[in-house]
Amino acid sequence: MTVDISPSEFRRLCKENSFWGHTSGCVPGYAQANVLVLPKEIANDFADLCARNPVACPLIAMTKLGSPNKVDNRLVIDDEDFDLRTDLPKYGVYKQGNLIREASSVADCWDLDSHIGFLIGCSFSFEAALISEGLAPRNVLEKSNVSMYLTTKMLNPAGVFTRCPYVVSMRPYKATDVEKVRLVTREFRKTHGEPIDWGYDAVERLGIKDLLLPEFGSPCRIEDDEIPVFWACGVTTQVAAQQAGKHSANDDYIFAHVPGHMLVLDIKDSEICCL
Amino acid sequence: MTVDISPSEFRRLCKENSFWGHTSGCVPGYAQANVLVLPKEIANDFADLCARNPVACPLIAMTKLGSPNKVDNRLVIDDEDFDLRTDLPKYGVYKQGNLIREASSVADCWDLDSHIGFLIGCSFSFEAALISEGLAPRNVLEKSNVSMYLTTKMLNPAGVFTRCPYVVSMRPYKATDVEKVRLVTREFRKTHGEPIDWGYDAVERLGIKDLLLPEFGSPCRIEDDEIPVFWACGVTTQVAAQQAGKHSANDDYIFAHVPGHMLVLDIKDSEICCL
Repeated sequence: MTVDISPSEFRRLCKENSFWGHTSGCVPGYAQANVLVLPKEIANDFADLCARNPVACPLIAMTKLGSPNKVDNRLVIDDEDFDLRTDLPKYGVYKQGNLIREASSVADCWDLDSHIGFLIGCSFSFEAALISEGLAPRNVLEKSNVSMYLTTKMLNPAGVFTRCPYVVSMRPYKATDVEKVRLVTREFRKTHGEPIDWGYDAVERLGIKDLLLPEFGSPCRIEDDEIPVFWACGVTTQVAAQQAGKHSANDDYIFAHVPGHMLVLDIKDSEICCL
Repeated sequence: MTVDISPSEFRRLCKENSFWGHTSGCVPGYAQANVLVLPKEIANDFADLCARNPVACPLIAMTKLGSPNKVDNRLVIDDEDFDLRTDLPKYGVYKQGNLIREASSVADCWDLDSHIGFLIGCSFSFEAALISEGLAPRNVLEKSNVSMYLTTKMLNPAGVFTRCPYVVSMRPYKATDVEKVRLVTREFRKTHGEPIDWGYDAVERLGIKDLLLPEFGSPCRIEDDEIPVFWACGVTTQVAAQQAGKHSANDDYIFAHVPGHMLVLDIKDSEICCL
């Protein structure tokens, strides 16, 4: 159902609440984005956070105040029916840093005088390139959500966004394949690019608590001849927004995609390098 | 001598080997840059490193292959007499990652078929703004070189540049002034922007060995009512180049400014925010 349709048709399924699953493997060939929607008081700080941390938070487009149905880059979304309030399969709704519910739409609580949406590149985009190089990630082969971990590596702070940790995604590879994997993914500058670390010693360097128990996504088997390879992950932005919300007196809603449940874009995986 | 002259005149003093000191406070009002000159084999990887780590490695201009007397941004250097082979007060000359000598010119060993120069923003540029806000850094008041430390915080890797640590500069401030200090410096996006961490607990987070013994620059007194405030520092790029040199079979020279002995630019401190 979600394979032979266009991005616009897929987003209509989300809009109509006919699809609410994770989007790994959905609408092959097209890029997907992490989504974060913030009140205007902290939106500038967040734009700075992205500029100061382009590997973890690669900003690819944003909405203007009052216009949830348009982004500032038509290469990314070019669709008159688009509406960021409804077109994600599943939203997390946060208040003061706490997830208060999941929802299939946030049209009822999006404040046109305040909310600004940010689209952040997603590592799903380079998975197609890895597949075509004979380096298919296990999570794709097994149709599971990728493993994601909280780390102790800190983003460069920006305004209210201080002490924000990197979240990383992990895909296991043979040590002899790592240089090829780095080379294939480094072209994808707007979707996290090459890995930020690799090997079992990286687990300690990144301060990952338990490789078998990812904080987000699904656990992933690592074979004896493989090592974990870690990429920066767009879920970083959600954790940052939650932390900022916790330390702010602001009572506004924050919205984000539910991890793995991304916004499907009109730009192809093969074109997103050019952004 | 170095106060009431133009950037071009100051660079001529360097060219003629009449000035070889550190440049803190020299040619007030004008920005200064960290310099790194690399063989072409690793220049693309370094440009990627800058793109992936804009806070530590804010690239503001570079030379083209074969043209050490011109940079790709005329706002930064606009001077027919400019020559990156001679216009620094003091160069470090490296081979395979080791400093083999300091020199007042590298004209004799710059390879026109290989070397590419990179100019990286320098935190001296925001010191003028701090001064005018009544927040003069101690190193400026005492006319000493700023304290700089190696950390265990890693850059996002790019090609041959893997496992490269951040180098930070430190200026002590009263804890109550930190938010103002952050606000003043964050506008300087191309010269490291706001601090990356602050407070005595940051010393541990950053893995700094001994606050009293900076790896580069001069030690700096911290009063009882002050805390250390840490900015990313352009010396990061030198350490990265040394590491890359150590792990490469390449026998080419690498050049860099000696820490604190920067390239004086034609762009003003007040204009460098706009780059």
